[in-house]
Amino acid sequence: MDARILRSADGQYCPVRATLALLGQKWVPRIVYELQTGKRRFNDLAEGVGGCNSRTLRDRLKALEEVGIVRREIVATTPPWVEYELTERGRELAEAMAPLATWGRRHLADEALVAPLPHEE
Amino acid sequence: MDARILRSADGQYCPVRATLALLGQKWVPRIVYELQTGKRRFNDLAEGVGGCNSRTLRDRLKALEEVGIVRREIVATTPPWVEYELTERGRELAEAMAPLATWGRRHLADEALVAPLPHEE
Repeated sequence: MDARILRSADGQYCPVRATLALLGQKWVPRIVYELQTGKRRFNDLAEGVGGCNSRTLRDRLKALEEVGIVRREIVATTPPWVEYELTERGRELAEAMAPLATWGRRHLADEALVAPLPHEE
Repeated sequence: MDARILRSADGQYCPVRATLALLGQKWVPRIVYELQTGKRRFNDLAEGVGGCNSRTLRDRLKALEEVGIVRREIVATTPPWVEYELTERGRELAEAMAPLATWGRRHLADEALVAPLPHEE
């Protein structure tokens, strides 16, 4: 999180900027979107998110846990496994993201439109 | 834009993934949010976005122009200047982002919550 973009020109902390900064972090929108369907094990989630390496995914999930969006649960089976799910706050975030999905279906349906975009640095 | 995250597990192009990938690019949500208030000159926009270097901002604006979200206009004064504004599609995107602002005001009002998040790589 780049601390500079959390503040308005007058130096005040801004929660809207914080939200946009959070969702501007690579993979975060994908993770929230994938968790909308319910609890997911790490490997299953990694497959759903697609293309994010394990270490980065783990870091992102930890950050989302700290901000109260994701809950991490260890299931005490033999062997034990780890599940991730959205908290109430996380589900509200997913709902707030839904209009974006609608916008995308309407305006980015043509793959050719998106294809020429430059790759991320 | 990472081409892998535009596709579902079955390899199909997905416009919702494309939207999230677009907004997942650093600075893109900030740029759209800043342009909501109307036409902006480059330097003024750069100041509003905050912390993004000029080259990156120019690249992002070009990408948003190609995907039909931003319109670039050269104002033929002496000296000429360049203005940026949202297209109709861009304004709809900004509207679709509004519930996120509401969510942020509700859930990220406490700066201490966001402060410990790791910096972006």
